[in-house]
Amino acid sequence: MDKSWSVSDRLTLRLEVEEFYANYIACLDEERFEQWPEFFTDDCFYQIIPRLNFERGLPMATWRSEGRGYLLDRITAIRKTSVYGPRYMRRIVSAVRLIEQSAEGFDARANYAAFETLPDEFTRVFSVGQSHDAFTRIDGALKLRRRVCVFDSELVPNSLVYPL
Amino acid sequence: MDKSWSVSDRLTLRLEVEEFYANYIACLDEERFEQWPEFFTDDCFYQIIPRLNFERGLPMATWRSEGRGYLLDRITAIRKTSVYGPRYMRRIVSAVRLIEQSAEGFDARANYAAFETLPDEFTRVFSVGQSHDAFTRIDGALKLRRRVCVFDSELVPNSLVYPL
Amino acid sequence: MDKSWSVSDRLTLRLEVEEFYANYIACLDEERFEQWPEFFTDDCFYQIIPRLNFERGLPMATWRSEGRGYLLDRITAIRKTSVYGPRYMRRIVSAVRLIEQSAEGFDARANYAAFETLPDEFTRVFSVGQSHDAFTRIDGALKLRRRVCVFDSELVPNSLVYPL
Repeated sequence: MDKSWSVSDRLTLRLEVEEFYANYIACLDEERFEQWPEFFTDDCFYQIIPRLNFERGLPMATWRSEGRGYLLDRITAIRKTSVYGPRYMRRIVSAVRLIEQSAEGFDARANYAAFETLPDEFTRVFSVGQSHDAFTRIDGALKLRRRVCVFDSELVPNSLVYPL
Repeated sequence: MDKSWSVSDRLTLRLEVEEFYANYIACLDEERFEQWPEFFTDDCFYQIIPRLNFERGLPMATWRSEGRGYLLDRITAIRKTSVYGPRYMRRIVSAVRLIEQSAEGFDARANYAAFETLPDEFTRVFSVGQSHDAFTRIDGALKLRRRVCVFDSELVPNSLVYPL
Repeated sequence: MDKSWSVSDRLTLRLEVEEFYANYIACLDEERFEQWPEFFTDDCFYQIIPRLNFERGLPMATWRSEGRGYLLDRITAIRKTSVYGPRYMRRIVSAVRLIEQSAEGFDARANYAAFETLPDEFTRVFSVGQSHDAFTRIDGALKLRRRVCVFDSELVPNSLVYPL
């Protein structure tokens, strides 16, 4: 952990990051996808990658977007062109950690769990993993410069439709 | 988010709400059901409703109680008259959000996950969803005026015995 | 809840405990097992026990370690002598509660959920339960004097390899 944060600063910032994640999750769970890119900077990097590849430095990812325009593209795909069955996703975040400060902002990590519910089926575990997030501040508001979701299952879920 | 909260007030209140949820969950997980109605106001409204009905404005709910007396009735049923197999429930809360202030208090939302364990079986996901909570303060202590648990699975669990 | 904490002290300490849990979980999830004993005092007590036994006061536990040396032994076993298939574990903590202050420090409780992922399988719920933790402070840093993980499933998981 970076020593340059005072305890008090770190705990306050941690609270703010927890609130950011809560708003981020609600945006996705409630399927307000058009608002989702607003959590990112213009030149953001967003990736969903299996843990095995991530830990070995292998580049193959399930989802890779460079820049907010890519995120918007993906939302258009979800709304208009992708073919998939209806489902609900419910996300949990836990174990939020501030990692270190940088010139651009700071890094944080958190664990997530996502639960999927298909029509007429019981809810099941969809994916669990860790997010590696780089935050910056624009006009006072936290934004993601980078978000890499590393998921534990080596199986690529057969339809990763929605973002994490 | 309501602009009338200062950042500092909001973060402090958020902490207090997190603590409220932790105590609420522990009360239920530890099966101290007789204490559960104390988290509510006398004229409270408590409901567990499928997401599909909630989002379409359909009123059909799995559980609906108006007033603390109804909650107490339900506890009596759980303790004395309902017939059901033994099970443990374990609840998780995440992504707590303060939504807005009102004359009576404020609204909050959170995600929950509940895990059920039957004797000689492995733990499974029982229900995930979002709670829509309206808080007020009585003698300094937070109380729920209203709690609506919106669960994702369109399947009504075959035995919703305990509250969420 | 202990009345001797001021609200402000309690909320600040609660934040610090949340951060402790986040670091603790990350250490285990990221399989930095050699660092795990550093979260404990030299004379710590660590136990994983089924809820049924715990609630009835029965002593039989799935894991019982007295002292940090035992924890180190276990890590050696995990790294060198135990035979088990590869798996990832992902842990969630929620509903953190400060319970009471004592001469040595204070007690806290939290719910946990652990998700296991085997190669070429989907992620599943591994174990959920409650941790009963006694904290003390050494040179300013929180340490666990005692951690008892009470898990809900009466089934002993067929291979509890990693700590909780």
